Amino acid sequence: MTLPKTIDDIETPAVLIDVDRVEANLARAQAYADEHRLALRPHIKTHKLPAFAKRQVELGAVGITCQKLGESEVMADGGLSDIYMPYNILGKAKLARLAALADRITIKVTADSLPVVEGLSGAFAGRAAPIAVLVECDTGAGRCGVQSPEAALALAQAIDRAPGLVFGGLMTYPPVGGMAAVDAYLGEALRLHEAAGLEVKVVSAGNTPDLYRSHLVTHATEIRPGTYIYNDRSLINRGAATHADCALTVLTTVVSRPTADRAVLDAGSKALTSDLLGCVGYGEILEAPGAVIAGLSEEHGHVDLSAATARPSVGDRVRVLPNHACPVSNLFDIVHLVSGERVVDVLPVAARGKVT
Amino acid sequence: MTLPKTIDDIETPAVLIDVDRVEANLARAQAYADEHRLALRPHIKTHKLPAFAKRQVELGAVGITCQKLGESEVMADGGLSDIYMPYNILGKAKLARLAALADRITIKVTADSLPVVEGLSGAFAGRAAPIAVLVECDTGAGRCGVQSPEAALALAQAIDRAPGLVFGGLMTYPPVGGMAAVDAYLGEALRLHEAAGLEVKVVSAGNTPDLYRSHLVTHATEIRPGTYIYNDRSLINRGAATHADCALTVLTTVVSRPTADRAVLDAGSKALTSDLLGCVGYGEILEAPGAVIAGLSEEHGHVDLSAATARPSVGDRVRVLPNHACPVSNLFDIVHLVSGERVVDVLPVAARGKVT
Repeated sequence: MTLPKTIDDIETPAVLIDVDRVEANLARAQAYADEHRLALRPHIKTHKLPAFAKRQVELGAVGITCQKLGESEVMADGGLSDIYMPYNILGKAKLARLAALADRITIKVTADSLPVVEGLSGAFAGRAAPIAVLVECDTGAGRCGVQSPEAALALAQAIDRAPGLVFGGLMTYPPVGGMAAVDAYLGEALRLHEAAGLEVKVVSAGNTPDLYRSHLVTHATEIRPGTYIYNDRSLINRGAATHADCALTVLTTVVSRPTADRAVLDAGSKALTSDLLGCVGYGEILEAPGAVIAGLSEEHGHVDLSAATARPSVGDRVRVLPNHACPVSNLFDIVHLVSGERVVDVLPVAARGKVT
Repeated sequence: MTLPKTIDDIETPAVLIDVDRVEANLARAQAYADEHRLALRPHIKTHKLPAFAKRQVELGAVGITCQKLGESEVMADGGLSDIYMPYNILGKAKLARLAALADRITIKVTADSLPVVEGLSGAFAGRAAPIAVLVECDTGAGRCGVQSPEAALALAQAIDRAPGLVFGGLMTYPPVGGMAAVDAYLGEALRLHEAAGLEVKVVSAGNTPDLYRSHLVTHATEIRPGTYIYNDRSLINRGAATHADCALTVLTTVVSRPTADRAVLDAGSKALTSDLLGCVGYGEILEAPGAVIAGLSEEHGHVDLSAATARPSVGDRVRVLPNHACPVSNLFDIVHLVSGERVVDVLPVAARGKVT
């Protein structure tokens, strides 16, 4: 493939990544983490690119966070050597893959129930080195996790007793805006663990919406934001980013203008996803303020121009800021790194589509 | 990769395709099309698999429908020789790819505006063979397409005059349930074309929700359903399919049971998509009637079991019928073809992620 020279040379739809904004976003988060003595362990789900993961570590991240084994395998292949997986890993095949990874890199995992602990112990008992397992705590997000500090201690003790495992600490995916409750839960859990004589080496928390309030979870030692590298429209909507912080856009072409008030883009749900995350419309057309991407079919974005201050014509190319950056990365085989109008590189999204 | 022998050997999440149901769905649609003397030109967006496209043609389809050039290229590589693209193709790079395809296979395209016609003419004028261009008509779906039968004729005449092009007929994506209005629009357009002495070789319509009412659009000569090969939960919801017609499911594992009423699956929006299409919840867990997949994060499906008649445990594997089959195919690199519990093949989704 010939590298396009400028944005004008790129076929649409395409993902553009503004490398200058990436660099600024990474530097700002690392400086914040350093200032508050928080270890930064970025979640790679947003970019899925070994090159950016390496840059994050180069800037000071202690390692990275991956959700799926397939992502961890790609990142290990790409030279990343310290990975944490905040995921319950179950089943013979996955446990064998985890053990193979543990032979190559430093890897830690998670559990929120005894069956997960038992599976991990079965896979790691008798091996040269044990694997560190953190206990996931549901501090209010209502996803995975043990339901109380007491339950956290009980599971930590089970890990501590289990052959092949060492207790690695506590982990939570904190609910947005819920820092006080998170801190209270974690504080009580730490008190219980101390009383039981069990050292909590890591307390891992953090997300992008509350990234710059992470220090309010005073008990956290580590944060795992992901989206901060690119940011997106939903984060602007939440007040957690500005347009100038947004590094990922989707370059599209207007393919139809059936009526005065309707435009159709060549980017539909297969490029932008159906994620709304509280936003109105499926993305923002940067060149047409007031336009609403009111509907998506798989290959078309249906735009209501009735309140738009600009009305692009058939063949015009516009950039869409998506509601949610992370799943957009998962839909494209390649991304175009740009600086201004110049294309500086085209990268395969190496960890894209790693579902298992 | 070793082929898994049975469903039990497959790592989750994974797409399972019931080949017996596929065969029944294909046969039924072809018999209906034959009975009503409608040419069947299946849309491959649902399966994105050359093997299934070839099977559709083997059973009697006149060719296939692809939305993107990348899909057409993959299908041409896979041996498909007659492709229609109901899409406005714009821009130098795409027009060059289209011309290259036209050298290899029979390919027809679409236009709904003069700029699209001019672009196509610029690319095909002076070539050995012209390309057939159908006029897209907006018969009520409110997507692309000219807005009136008169506008359809005007664009058909522009195509007829344009060097390198021949007028190929009329095309519409009919609004669901809108057969009468579609038929009235097309009837008037046919009358105008006849009066103007312009032959309309093909009138292409059809979709899956109204597949078995396609004959009510009496002026159509061809139908382009896609989803009928797999069907999905949204089609059951619309009364257009039964559970026994649904060939695609997502095999998942319960990875967490944080509370009595909550289960978490290892399939989130990266496996099921955020598409709701009017459904409640993000898919149906076949083994747990009454369970609601109330929310998705990227790698987790959050299930409300409060009304469920079965409560799967951590490690249990369940099958999810997704709301919308087509974008699920686009998220997985491979699909598992199954017959009962037996895995009969694992296929790469060759036309997955072809965004341009």
